[in-house]
Amino acid sequence: MKITILGAYQTKFGELWDKSLKDLSSEAAFGAVEDAGVLFKDIQTAYFGNKMSPQITGQNHVGSLLAEILGTDIPITRIEAACASGGSAVRQACMAIESGQYETALVLGAEKMTDLAISEISVGLMGAASEQERESGLSFVGLYALMARKYFDKYGAGEKDLAAIAVKNHFHGSLNPKAQFPFVLTIDQVMASSMVADPLKLLDCSPITDGAAGLVLASEKYAKKLGSKKPVIIASKQASDTLSLSKRKDLTSLAGAEKAAGEAYRQAGVEAKDIEFAEVHDCFTIAEAMALEDLGFCKKGEGYIAVGKGKTRLGGERAINLSGGLKACGHPVGATGVKQLVEVYSQMMGRAGKRQTKKNKLALTHNIGGTGGTAVVHIVRSAKCKAQSEKSKKE
Amino acid sequence: MKITILGAYQTKFGELWDKSLKDLSSEAAFGAVEDAGVLFKDIQTAYFGNKMSPQITGQNHVGSLLAEILGTDIPITRIEAACASGGSAVRQACMAIESGQYETALVLGAEKMTDLAISEISVGLMGAASEQERESGLSFVGLYALMARKYFDKYGAGEKDLAAIAVKNHFHGSLNPKAQFPFVLTIDQVMASSMVADPLKLLDCSPITDGAAGLVLASEKYAKKLGSKKPVIIASKQASDTLSLSKRKDLTSLAGAEKAAGEAYRQAGVEAKDIEFAEVHDCFTIAEAMALEDLGFCKKGEGYIAVGKGKTRLGGERAINLSGGLKACGHPVGATGVKQLVEVYSQMMGRAGKRQTKKNKLALTHNIGGTGGTAVVHIVRSAKCKAQSEKSKKE
Repeated sequence: MKITILGAYQTKFGELWDKSLKDLSSEAAFGAVEDAGVLFKDIQTAYFGNKMSPQITGQNHVGSLLAEILGTDIPITRIEAACASGGSAVRQACMAIESGQYETALVLGAEKMTDLAISEISVGLMGAASEQERESGLSFVGLYALMARKYFDKYGAGEKDLAAIAVKNHFHGSLNPKAQFPFVLTIDQVMASSMVADPLKLLDCSPITDGAAGLVLASEKYAKKLGSKKPVIIASKQASDTLSLSKRKDLTSLAGAEKAAGEAYRQAGVEAKDIEFAEVHDCFTIAEAMALEDLGFCKKGEGYIAVGKGKTRLGGERAINLSGGLKACGHPVGATGVKQLVEVYSQMMGRAGKRQTKKNKLALTHNIGGTGGTAVVHIVRSAKCKAQSEKSKKE
Repeated sequence: MKITILGAYQTKFGELWDKSLKDLSSEAAFGAVEDAGVLFKDIQTAYFGNKMSPQITGQNHVGSLLAEILGTDIPITRIEAACASGGSAVRQACMAIESGQYETALVLGAEKMTDLAISEISVGLMGAASEQERESGLSFVGLYALMARKYFDKYGAGEKDLAAIAVKNHFHGSLNPKAQFPFVLTIDQVMASSMVADPLKLLDCSPITDGAAGLVLASEKYAKKLGSKKPVIIASKQASDTLSLSKRKDLTSLAGAEKAAGEAYRQAGVEAKDIEFAEVHDCFTIAEAMALEDLGFCKKGEGYIAVGKGKTRLGGERAINLSGGLKACGHPVGATGVKQLVEVYSQMMGRAGKRQTKKNKLALTHNIGGTGGTAVVHIVRSAKCKAQSEKSKKE
């Protein structure tokens, strides 16, 4: 696979009381097109990652809403895969281009979450979990707390180990002007924050966020015609797992993420060790520890150790969540998977300002729906990177 | 495009009080796989068209729900495009196969609508319209009534002309054991039914329906390996229009449907006149009159005349909605676009029983979201049909 990222844009993430879903979508869509250096009429199809519009504003059919906002009649398709809606939308756009039907595609991810009371949003978010989980009164933080407890028991990790993940992501977020929470935290502050679902505290959790992100993707042929030296998506894979946590064999690993990552490495012709930086789905701190293991960056049970040693910090061995992650940059659910690729693009284009990594040639994004019922993995290489086997070029 | 329909299945459509979304989805998925003559493990990816699950049961993330039901970890992606969710899901599956990533795909469309009070369902359905339309108290029958009134004014059609469409579709539905309303109607009965939104009466409207439909699609190469003589999708196109009716130039035609159809004809290398039968989106009788014109089967303003002359009836010039259409077969919104292709498959395989058409070699399906904000058109040819230009084979 060779799909060029021609342009990218992220709105400010946060509690944006003066912006609607339409405002955010429009800003991200036109921002991405402008960054791509193409005209809007050059965009041939679009995909829209959005989870909650029907529950929040009663609005289905946001593909057509987007067509109206953008003034276009191209096909626009809404993808919903809970918090993996954005990543899955990127993937569908890649396949639409690979199919040969289109040379360019816009991908938009957007979510307007703060228009509901927090209790209502929590109920809405539980739509990504199973009926049994909803009926038993579980929340998402409760579900991830079950995983954290099991992870602690199995590997000897503790609350401070998870706190270090939040601290690292807030450090990165403090360098990102688009982040919802651009400030640093200390371990003590995380430890002193209110318990939400033991052992996860308030500062282990990603926030409720408004925001949008957009990408313009293009075929190799189209990008070549423009003389593009922009980053290229070389793998896009998705896998499923059970909706219910109770039906899993293991609570300390997401089987879907492992499968999608394995397939993505094969498609790209690279290995985990080759990945220089990554954006992973840290909806809760425990999720990042597991992600590092599921993606093959660390051995099982050693994800939290790598974080503790500073290996995943800017300047470390393999920087994770330079954007600040879901924790500090924010988590507008349908936008998150798209934003991860916007961050990768910014880093590869050398535009990441104070959080710029020098190791910026091969990156991975990891976007999760629910407790792992959907997992989407993308691998991106910069124009300077040669890492891609001959075999994978054919795939 | 050459995507073989290896298998197809439709559940009974109706008010199915003893069946859940899970039951219906499972029956259609396994039914389609069995009909395809493959094993479930041969299915490599899946797409799920569903509109209302989040609003009806609070359940998002139905891709993962389906993975749990089916016991699989393949990627399953939910597509939502209001009442065009099913058709759009078929289209995404076609492109996934065309991308070369997959050789087989399952497409499922399912909706469980009768678990809500009718007033609540009406509110939920309006999620497919614009905010302004919802806030002004319009319903979908109200929106289509505006179109009907304009159509009457412009072309001189009247209520009895629309009634003839319901009568024709109920005649076809009376021959379909899977139909929700398998009985005939007379013009007088339609005319005597309660006025819902002038000039549309109860019997001009499609019903609220539970049901599911499934397809197994395969690449040309895979189908060849099986020695398949099954129908082949030779075009799949989608277009958008404004969400709001008030922003359209014309209320008597759906511009998105015209565009998608035009592109589909070009992709398939066929013309409207070549199409032998079609399943069109008759959510209200007026929609079928407009569809006949948008698809190029009739000149503008003559769709209703063709129906009156019996040209669209079984045995006529070009049979329309042999399944009974949305009107008589039923309209489980996310399933409808998939069911249209199930009907085409059944007709081409000679399995349509009493409603079997002899002119069954080249067909079209037309699936609409909202009042035309999304339109999806597929063209299918039977194994016996030679109609496909050399040019289109390359596309």
